[in-house]
Amino acid sequence: MIIHVVNPNTTTSMTDKIGKAAKAAAGANVEFMVSQAEMGPVSIEGYYDEAFAVPGMLARIVEAEARGVAGHIIACFDDTGLDAARCIAKAPVIGIGEAAFHAASLIAEKFSVITTLGRSIPAIEHNLVRYGLAARCTKVRAAEVPVLSLEDQHSDAYRKITAEIVAALQQDGCEAIVLGCAGMADLARDLSAKHGVPIVDGVAVSVGLIQMLHQAGIETSKRGGYAAPSPKKYTGEFSRFAPA
Amino acid sequence: MIIHVVNPNTTTSMTDKIGKAAKAAAGANVEFMVSQAEMGPVSIEGYYDEAFAVPGMLARIVEAEARGVAGHIIACFDDTGLDAARCIAKAPVIGIGEAAFHAASLIAEKFSVITTLGRSIPAIEHNLVRYGLAARCTKVRAAEVPVLSLEDQHSDAYRKITAEIVAALQQDGCEAIVLGCAGMADLARDLSAKHGVPIVDGVAVSVGLIQMLHQAGIETSKRGGYAAPSPKKYTGEFSRFAPA
Amino acid sequence: MIIHVVNPNTTTSMTDKIGKAAKAAAGANVEFMVSQAEMGPVSIEGYYDEAFAVPGMLARIVEAEARGVAGHIIACFDDTGLDAARCIAKAPVIGIGEAAFHAASLIAEKFSVITTLGRSIPAIEHNLVRYGLAARCTKVRAAEVPVLSLEDQHSDAYRKITAEIVAALQQDGCEAIVLGCAGMADLARDLSAKHGVPIVDGVAVSVGLIQMLHQAGIETSKRGGYAAPSPKKYTGEFSRFAPA
Amino acid sequence: MIIHVVNPNTTTSMTDKIGKAAKAAAGANVEFMVSQAEMGPVSIEGYYDEAFAVPGMLARIVEAEARGVAGHIIACFDDTGLDAARCIAKAPVIGIGEAAFHAASLIAEKFSVITTLGRSIPAIEHNLVRYGLAARCTKVRAAEVPVLSLEDQHSDAYRKITAEIVAALQQDGCEAIVLGCAGMADLARDLSAKHGVPIVDGVAVSVGLIQMLHQAGIETSKRGGYAAPSPKKYTGEFSRFAPA
Amino acid sequence: MIIHVVNPNTTTSMTDKIGKAAKAAAGANVEFMVSQAEMGPVSIEGYYDEAFAVPGMLARIVEAEARGVAGHIIACFDDTGLDAARCIAKAPVIGIGEAAFHAASLIAEKFSVITTLGRSIPAIEHNLVRYGLAARCTKVRAAEVPVLSLEDQHSDAYRKITAEIVAALQQDGCEAIVLGCAGMADLARDLSAKHGVPIVDGVAVSVGLIQMLHQAGIETSKRGGYAAPSPKKYTGEFSRFAPA
Amino acid sequence: MIIHVVNPNTTTSMTDKIGKAAKAAAGANVEFMVSQAEMGPVSIEGYYDEAFAVPGMLARIVEAEARGVAGHIIACFDDTGLDAARCIAKAPVIGIGEAAFHAASLIAEKFSVITTLGRSIPAIEHNLVRYGLAARCTKVRAAEVPVLSLEDQHSDAYRKITAEIVAALQQDGCEAIVLGCAGMADLARDLSAKHGVPIVDGVAVSVGLIQMLHQAGIETSKRGGYAAPSPKKYTGEFSRFAPA
Repeated sequence: MIIHVVNPNTTTSMTDKIGKAAKAAAGANVEFMVSQAEMGPVSIEGYYDEAFAVPGMLARIVEAEARGVAGHIIACFDDTGLDAARCIAKAPVIGIGEAAFHAASLIAEKFSVITTLGRSIPAIEHNLVRYGLAARCTKVRAAEVPVLSLEDQHSDAYRKITAEIVAALQQDGCEAIVLGCAGMADLARDLSAKHGVPIVDGVAVSVGLIQMLHQAGIETSKRGGYAAPSPKKYTGEFSRFAPA
Repeated sequence: MIIHVVNPNTTTSMTDKIGKAAKAAAGANVEFMVSQAEMGPVSIEGYYDEAFAVPGMLARIVEAEARGVAGHIIACFDDTGLDAARCIAKAPVIGIGEAAFHAASLIAEKFSVITTLGRSIPAIEHNLVRYGLAARCTKVRAAEVPVLSLEDQHSDAYRKITAEIVAALQQDGCEAIVLGCAGMADLARDLSAKHGVPIVDGVAVSVGLIQMLHQAGIETSKRGGYAAPSPKKYTGEFSRFAPA
Repeated sequence: MIIHVVNPNTTTSMTDKIGKAAKAAAGANVEFMVSQAEMGPVSIEGYYDEAFAVPGMLARIVEAEARGVAGHIIACFDDTGLDAARCIAKAPVIGIGEAAFHAASLIAEKFSVITTLGRSIPAIEHNLVRYGLAARCTKVRAAEVPVLSLEDQHSDAYRKITAEIVAALQQDGCEAIVLGCAGMADLARDLSAKHGVPIVDGVAVSVGLIQMLHQAGIETSKRGGYAAPSPKKYTGEFSRFAPA
Repeated sequence: MIIHVVNPNTTTSMTDKIGKAAKAAAGANVEFMVSQAEMGPVSIEGYYDEAFAVPGMLARIVEAEARGVAGHIIACFDDTGLDAARCIAKAPVIGIGEAAFHAASLIAEKFSVITTLGRSIPAIEHNLVRYGLAARCTKVRAAEVPVLSLEDQHSDAYRKITAEIVAALQQDGCEAIVLGCAGMADLARDLSAKHGVPIVDGVAVSVGLIQMLHQAGIETSKRGGYAAPSPKKYTGEFSRFAPA
Repeated sequence: MIIHVVNPNTTTSMTDKIGKAAKAAAGANVEFMVSQAEMGPVSIEGYYDEAFAVPGMLARIVEAEARGVAGHIIACFDDTGLDAARCIAKAPVIGIGEAAFHAASLIAEKFSVITTLGRSIPAIEHNLVRYGLAARCTKVRAAEVPVLSLEDQHSDAYRKITAEIVAALQQDGCEAIVLGCAGMADLARDLSAKHGVPIVDGVAVSVGLIQMLHQAGIETSKRGGYAAPSPKKYTGEFSRFAPA
Repeated sequence: MIIHVVNPNTTTSMTDKIGKAAKAAAGANVEFMVSQAEMGPVSIEGYYDEAFAVPGMLARIVEAEARGVAGHIIACFDDTGLDAARCIAKAPVIGIGEAAFHAASLIAEKFSVITTLGRSIPAIEHNLVRYGLAARCTKVRAAEVPVLSLEDQHSDAYRKITAEIVAALQQDGCEAIVLGCAGMADLARDLSAKHGVPIVDGVAVSVGLIQMLHQAGIETSKRGGYAAPSPKKYTGEFSRFAPA
């Protein structure tokens, strides 16, 4: 079984970290194809970056699908381009935000989310509402650390995230914490031991969810919203992406 | 006052129809800049097309913003790229789906939506939930007419839309109808007269909403989710879109 | 186009202020009919006052409707008597609370409301739930200023409202502010400039919403809840209001 | 213990029927004060009638409160003027719609409502949402019988109500039925026996709810929305209603 | 009329207190059968205790039903075993949590709940959601007093509960308080006088709700979820409970 | 890794079928401990059976926990005793209903559920609401097949389930089907192939979810509702279950 993990931004150090986290979470019989968006922003911080991350990420989904992977993981906590990816993939597609919300719901009554920047809070809240899991989330909090500061060992990102976890546990009435950025994937086990509560990283649990769906023989539904795109012309730079 | 109306797909006949509908809805003192996406799909039918419509649409928002328009209208019922556009525009940005839902809520307790294809229903339902207006919508219905058939005078699109309106009025308990595609903009007044209920086209009401916000001196908030994008590098084909 | 603005209370200085705010928000081609309730309370602070404001306000709706106005604005933030007014008006009827909620939803993900007294909070919250926009509102706050203190230049109302706006921006995670009383209509532009966020006054945006509906040819639905009242006898003092 | 039952319309035969139903539901130690609105519509069918029913009904609340009653029952299924009445009453006030929804929730997972006219459905749905009990209601149905036809022994109202109950039990998945008009108060026991399911009349259960609150020594809260009205001037015909 | 009150735990002093509270709340014509669970935990603090309280409580429901009681009250604030009890009882069954939520909703727009331990908060929140009354509850608070400390006159339980009521009134925007444990039944009237707001004890109001349903002739629906159990074999220790 | 699968009823043929389904869904490196409730009903059809299934099922959780299993699966679609089990287990506990809802949400926008009897519909609907996934479920349908008829090869259960799937696909607008009984575990793959849509069996996906949580090192939170039970006395037959 090959699992495709795509980083929708174009920062290689982050892609590497995500790949490592995915491998660490998988059993011996899983292989990985790790990719990053063909083009687009070096980090995704808000709706505008997200818009330009999707086409280059979808290019990777198409390539991986052609290789016959067992499933795709979109390794950005906003679940960037998840719906579009499901339209063109036969294999299941999981967003790490979605994955983390579902996993946290299985081991706690309520969870809080710690994300990077305040500007990302609304998008995460919208996803929670849409997935139906808003009632399980006590609060979406921002540690106010830019995404790429997580790649810098000298930043104070770790300290700020820790402070926000403490605040969540004291004030929110939550029973678990969800880490709200793919760039935090390497911190979950350490933080969980430190704070004595389940701390969920979406990359690790996405790997398990793909395995779960693969084992059960369940693929993305092609009725309704995720039906394959109708064949049509795409003009200009995007003509190569037109559905046949 | 100049209002920018952008068609996120690349079909010129549809752009022309939308421009005409917008002009018909405005007072004498309003000028229009009518554009269509720089590149991308010829029609937007589902999440995949939507992903490739956004960058070419955002290019037009940037151009219009430089001209100092009073506001932008995104003339696709899915409100394609609305969040991203708000991040880069100082002037207000309105999606025609959003506009139609709000307008219908002002003249009826409940409305039904008639859109083109069944595959578009989930995206419309998600928007309704996110905007908070799902409780005002009795049902999202599809007439099963492809978007471009609305450009073809010999298609049976009109008959199918009429049949779906009749079904909505008989079965849904709705008090108004929302037309769920920019390509239906020319049908609203005729259908409203025929069925004796308010039938809302999003293009016309978007014009009024931009005028309303402009008159009241209200622009898009730059706190939170719609803050201007952080300056950063975009790689590959999209480097020209990088926020400065 | 004539727009009817009715103040449901009987305080003339407040009616004058509302009329000025409405005129300031409209284009050159709009005329106004400004009225106040024929009888009833001098200010509306809670459910009991509201009950006695409605009949005298409906009398004005009937008079204005006979003049063929393009629409009616009910200038009390509780949207006093809005449903009843829609039953007897052919032209659209907009409540300023409703209008402000819809307008704020078009330029911000979330807004907070600053109203006069704590006792009015529940009624505003009920309206938000009913309109479907409760999810867009982070908090309804009271500045604890009686309605008529807004008419007194020597009161500390402005200071208290400012303090509450600051608290909302710091604590609520909101992106815009809605002013929750018609008597605050003259403060919006000044407060918006001061705090650097959109601050929405319902009177101004109601004018735009009536223009929007009028331009688009959309009137209140007469199917369902807003059907014209059935002819019947009204006894006692109210016999003159009986539907014919 | 004296319980005040007020019919908010001015039809005496209906007031008598409501009084009888209340007495039949009470134990031996309960006395009743039965009244009808001092002025206003002969039946309440929609929002407009409701607006003119409230002042004349509130007049009766004031009179009964002066007599020291144990509680007030507003005997119109729309719960006409309930909020305003609570502001001026020290004793508890119960609306029969509200009462029926709460009672049905205690003996069934889900209930359907059978009301008189389709135009009343939205108001009932709004109340259900506001009270929090919308999730317990499978459907609000209209038998399309005018309120006063329930006073006419030769009308086909009984047959139409029966047909709607049958439809609700077959199609809605409900486990109980709520009768949605005070004028149906005499039908509940007979219909319940006939259909073999609990059929709830709001008048009977309101009596029990007032007794319950009285026994437990619980009165309407005066914090927040139900605080006593602030003293102020009421102008014109309503000056006699001004809060002192 | 005989009302059955069952304490689902096996602590006799608590059963006695509950019985006294029930009797104090009833009129002269009501008799009581007071029981406690045949076997199981001495107090119910969380889901595990609850699971072992239900069989012994259901045994008492069966015995009381055989005596022809007018209704059953389950005197644990979690409404332990309420659904199962309704399946085997012809007479109505009321949980004191449920009863308190409904009663508080009749005299206040919003209420806060003060329960014993933080670990009980999620179960209470789930019940509020399920009953549909979550929107009426501002907050569920824990005074952090173990259930049996309420039986100990020397504990500081009263002080802690008082402190939490003060916090709720200051911070939550609530208009009434619900006491969230059967063991607090003797405190409601004193606390209500002290704090000047309605303070609802579920035991007292349950008595009134049973009387209300009995007077109105309404029993638990046997359609759907509360249908009598299908006859079948129960193995081992529970064979005596098998439905015939 | 050992996974514990417990059948909360006491029918051995069903336990065997569930065990087989679990093994079929797991990789080579997973061992199973398959058990059934120590005592209680031979099938769980409604709330009463559920109450008597829990103690005997919890006995098995305790035994398996002592063996150091990686996780527990409760193989009844009502998720019988799930909360109580989480209180006493260190390893994660998954209910098959919960598992199926989460899995279906990952591959479809909306799903319908096909369960056994109409009387089970309310319990399933309550779980959906509590988990937060009610918005993802279009309809809970009953095929009206008793649980044990699924163990009888000559029953018409398969035909009835098939008919209900066809109805769901035609009428509900769902994109996937969830099978709502552990006894249907052997049907999912066959039915999925037949109907061309994802058909989710909760047993298979529960296995994957336990593996996912185990790989990611995530255990049930012990903050809040799932804290270990406080030590206390249990009286009578249940004394052996008292928390130490």
